Amino acid sequence: MANRNPLEPTPIRRPRADQARLVADVLRHQIHAGGYPGALPSEADLAAEFFVSRNTVREALATLKDEGIIDRGPRTGTHVAIRKYDHGLDSLVGLKETFKGYGDIRNEVRAAMTVSAPPAVANRLKLSPGEPAVFVERLRYLGDLPLSLDMTYLTPDIGLEVLEHSLEVNDVFALIEEVTGRRLGEANLAVEAVPADPHSAALLQVPDGTPVLLLERLTHLDDGRPVDLEYIRMRGDRITLRGNLVRGI
Amino acid sequence: MANRNPLEPTPIRRPRADQARLVADVLRHQIHAGGYPGALPSEADLAAEFFVSRNTVREALATLKDEGIIDRGPRTGTHVAIRKYDHGLDSLVGLKETFKGYGDIRNEVRAAMTVSAPPAVANRLKLSPGEPAVFVERLRYLGDLPLSLDMTYLTPDIGLEVLEHSLEVNDVFALIEEVTGRRLGEANLAVEAVPADPHSAALLQVPDGTPVLLLERLTHLDDGRPVDLEYIRMRGDRITLRGNLVRGI
Repeated sequence: MANRNPLEPTPIRRPRADQARLVADVLRHQIHAGGYPGALPSEADLAAEFFVSRNTVREALATLKDEGIIDRGPRTGTHVAIRKYDHGLDSLVGLKETFKGYGDIRNEVRAAMTVSAPPAVANRLKLSPGEPAVFVERLRYLGDLPLSLDMTYLTPDIGLEVLEHSLEVNDVFALIEEVTGRRLGEANLAVEAVPADPHSAALLQVPDGTPVLLLERLTHLDDGRPVDLEYIRMRGDRITLRGNLVRGI
Repeated sequence: MANRNPLEPTPIRRPRADQARLVADVLRHQIHAGGYPGALPSEADLAAEFFVSRNTVREALATLKDEGIIDRGPRTGTHVAIRKYDHGLDSLVGLKETFKGYGDIRNEVRAAMTVSAPPAVANRLKLSPGEPAVFVERLRYLGDLPLSLDMTYLTPDIGLEVLEHSLEVNDVFALIEEVTGRRLGEANLAVEAVPADPHSAALLQVPDGTPVLLLERLTHLDDGRPVDLEYIRMRGDRITLRGNLVRGI
């Protein structure tokens, strides 16, 4: 054993659940990347590909089926059940711009009004507490599929002009640039995974407690002024955030 | 009505659940940003701050309590129950480097071995299918708190040298730079919100189905060579991903 070639694969004696998780993760990303457009390989073929037992493959596929990613039938085999959409993490792009090519984004405008900014919101938008702000809430569909629930606070000067345009078919980002004649600059983004509360779940047409991506995003104009504070819930089963990182420190 | 001042707040007649969600979201981010170190304001004060009813505040606080973010007691008031940690989205930094100052990161090494790379993994790391790769699985703790479960494939040349160092206390990123004498370059990141499968949930000490942030990250050396493919589960109740975006398109 002392002279065993270090490049020779170690015989695998890990618990099946550990191996199944890994197989599921690799398959999940293959599927999201557009792999297996027809059907997934057979259990035997996947077992050979991953150097694991068929039972491990079965457990991995059961996990993906529970997540709704694949369908399995005794005669029909294993197929990709849902398509997941990519949303950019490293550039500031509206949903309509993002999904150009996939289909039409349609916004159900649930609120569009002037409100008094709560202190925490006023603070982020550099308003005085209680100063008016414009609030917009939209449920955003790709075709008939609800993808995200967006709540947006805008500074009053820009917000009132934005309200004069159609919020049903436009991205707020595009409208801000249109009414100000300026480009957007930087945005500060926070991403969390949270369970959908019952009311949000009903709107997004997912079961209670389904994981959603919760984004808080504060967007500035290119002169550095914060103008747009959003709280966005994206369906975790339908959206992947993607971006590129560079080495920091 | 025709001449109503557009800056006058619109009387709010929205369903309570919609208002409560918004209050909960604003409070959630205040809390994560370090707000309310002592106790949260009273229901009456929060109602006044947010221009909503006390019932709406109560519903918002119930949501945050369900998520485990706050504790409430009839005599003790409302307190922040957990601290959530920020993890950088826009730069490539290991967990140990990230949490410098918060406490010690300790890694339970669950696997560290040579495996045959499944085709999908080989493809990402530019290896031949079945070629050896080094696989490392770690459960990562901040003090006694499990924060993330990381599964890592490394190219064999680098991986074998990495295995000669302590994986209990070092970030893999730092070890890669040490053994190669090169800096890391770019990484491609995908972020999803998925439910924790029972086995992962047990390891992370969260209930089954708890939302976790699932990251797939392919990291390159500064010469562009892909060397490190990771699948990372971060506890959604404990980690917020943060970064800055700039306007694209």
